[in-house]
Amino acid sequence: MSDPLGGNSKEQLKSYISRIESLEEEKKTFVDDIRDVYAEAKSAGFDPKVMRAIVRRRKDPDKAAELEALIETYMEALGPLRDTPLGAAAINGLRRTQ
Amino acid sequence: MSDPLGGNSKEQLKSYISRIESLEEEKKTFVDDIRDVYAEAKSAGFDPKVMRAIVRRRKDPDKAAELEALIETYMEALGPLRDTPLGAAAINGLRRTQ
Repeated sequence: MSDPLGGNSKEQLKSYISRIESLEEEKKTFVDDIRDVYAEAKSAGFDPKVMRAIVRRRKDPDKAAELEALIETYMEALGPLRDTPLGAAAINGLRRTQ
Repeated sequence: MSDPLGGNSKEQLKSYISRIESLEEEKKTFVDDIRDVYAEAKSAGFDPKVMRAIVRRRKDPDKAAELEALIETYMEALGPLRDTPLGAAAINGLRRTQ
């Protein structure tokens, strides 16, 4: 900006920051609500980690399928290694990215 | 859960996932709006990275002050090192966590 923070720029910046902060506030209510639903589901006996994985997969099934195929490929490459701690760690590391 | 996915559990799980997905949809509108405001501010000549740092600091001023104090301590400890690439990298790394 040619005029770093003089004149209009000050008011403009204040307005941007205040708009962002209001939107962040509103976003937070949904973040909190989502957390509450997971907590409620957990109380009902569902595993939140599994649910989060499902939500991620449903959001982007292609990416999920691609990762699943990669996991299979890596598992084949690892062969009997998959039953060692190192092999298991590699597989888990990959799964965790899903 | 005693009954992994039989009977009621199936419907219950469907309902949780659908509630989460609706909330995620609504959250997304705010995430998108926030991104738009940053883009608008950028067009007006403001640096989005600086703005994001400001939003973070205003959200948690105590944490920001604590980090700033730590940066000062580290800079003093580095002494003349601060002007070397390694020292500068260390200081930048710390700043980036803010």
